[in-house]
Amino acid sequence: MDKITSTQNETIKDIRKLSRRRRRRTTGLCLVEGIHPVLRALAPDGQAEVQVLVVCPEQLQSEIARQAVAEAAERGTRVLDVSADVFSSISGRDNPIGIAAVAKPRRWAVEDIPLGENAVLTVLCGTKNPGNLGTIIRTIDATGGAGAILVGQTTDPFDPTAIRASMGTVFSVPIARLESAPELLHYGRSRGICLVTTSARAETDLAQARFRYPCAVLLGSENEGLPEELLTEGDLQVRIPMRGRASSLNLAVAAGIMLHEAAKLPNNE
Amino acid sequence: MDKITSTQNETIKDIRKLSRRRRRRTTGLCLVEGIHPVLRALAPDGQAEVQVLVVCPEQLQSEIARQAVAEAAERGTRVLDVSADVFSSISGRDNPIGIAAVAKPRRWAVEDIPLGENAVLTVLCGTKNPGNLGTIIRTIDATGGAGAILVGQTTDPFDPTAIRASMGTVFSVPIARLESAPELLHYGRSRGICLVTTSARAETDLAQARFRYPCAVLLGSENEGLPEELLTEGDLQVRIPMRGRASSLNLAVAAGIMLHEAAKLPNNE
Repeated sequence: MDKITSTQNETIKDIRKLSRRRRRRTTGLCLVEGIHPVLRALAPDGQAEVQVLVVCPEQLQSEIARQAVAEAAERGTRVLDVSADVFSSISGRDNPIGIAAVAKPRRWAVEDIPLGENAVLTVLCGTKNPGNLGTIIRTIDATGGAGAILVGQTTDPFDPTAIRASMGTVFSVPIARLESAPELLHYGRSRGICLVTTSARAETDLAQARFRYPCAVLLGSENEGLPEELLTEGDLQVRIPMRGRASSLNLAVAAGIMLHEAAKLPNNE
Repeated sequence: MDKITSTQNETIKDIRKLSRRRRRRTTGLCLVEGIHPVLRALAPDGQAEVQVLVVCPEQLQSEIARQAVAEAAERGTRVLDVSADVFSSISGRDNPIGIAAVAKPRRWAVEDIPLGENAVLTVLCGTKNPGNLGTIIRTIDATGGAGAILVGQTTDPFDPTAIRASMGTVFSVPIARLESAPELLHYGRSRGICLVTTSARAETDLAQARFRYPCAVLLGSENEGLPEELLTEGDLQVRIPMRGRASSLNLAVAAGIMLHEAAKLPNNE
């Protein structure tokens, strides 16, 4: 196959457009960059279909990644061999690593997320920062969480920054969307899910909270927290203890503490 | 006082140079931007001396911030009134908020960090990302930690990105530096501090770990973790449980979970 050396190549132009959210929405595709994320997108246990691999052999040093590309090519995945200039034109990094993919992530309906009896879901309502969202999805994976439900105006988990922060776990963690808080309440009640909300003003300290399972940990936006409607209608409202002067935590750190506690089933049962 | 409207004004040129780490090191000064960070730098309980406030009245909407500027001016702090162009030239943000400060943070020696009997210190060895470092310092503040010790090549907590991620808590949390791992071990032993290391291969699960106080939670770099020397010489080696596929946590999230657990004294004593 010929090497692509023009940044104006039509396929390359199409790939570049995936940095725009609207383009991702209309095509259902996303652009994945970096070794870990591409390997996760290719993983057979994953939830994505890799349509194209983009490789710049001069930049790609990782033997594991080269091997994965060769195996994908054997299975029939299209591989584009591109020059360093072309790769840089699709890359969001200062030092591109020479491997990217166009992938079609599975679109989950909330009903399809498997819920074991001890399942812990994470609900994000209005998270704005893609880095925070990706970091939270990485934490969901690491804590064995059941999946993520994004409510309302939550940012796109398939934004390049989110994919990177997630280390590619956006392709293994089930992620579904709901339009509004009432839809979430309806889903939670119909499934017997304990909705755990977090608020600085909650009466119950996280250390005293008794989770009931399956549960969903609800997290709000970086600046405004959860909407009042959800704080009122949730089943359990908890407060992460604050002992400082600024007395607030980064959203992804707060999520990490909540999910770490929620995953400790034996202490809570 | 006259408004500064030239980006080539000498004072403004000097302020811009504080974006460079070397300049911060030689002057002992840093540039603080944004309402929360500047208010924390001005706080009377803080550990910084604000030498200059830079204000763009057209951009600054916050009444609380305007009030704080007026009070600082009354106490004799120099206030520069600058045009939007000039403010943008010193700002690292796309949408500058119109308030910044030149501050001289206190330089702590490790010996001067107050250690109560239940103190929890955080040691960072080689953290590279200023956003992670700032987020961890914010978490130290929120969990009531005693302070941070930065060992070796750890990034600068007074980098603009770190200050921002810390929400300005770099000006209230004691932060000291040590050159090397042996210096840390010497300090820890001379003070009877329990050095808690984290490693994916540790035998003790965090849930079973019994912290002894005062303790220090040691965290390594984003990619390489802690140096072998510290893993071997530490007093307690713990593992955060991992239940996923990618099975790793963002450094600031791992720090959050460790510090949250270490702050739970009643359960560990």
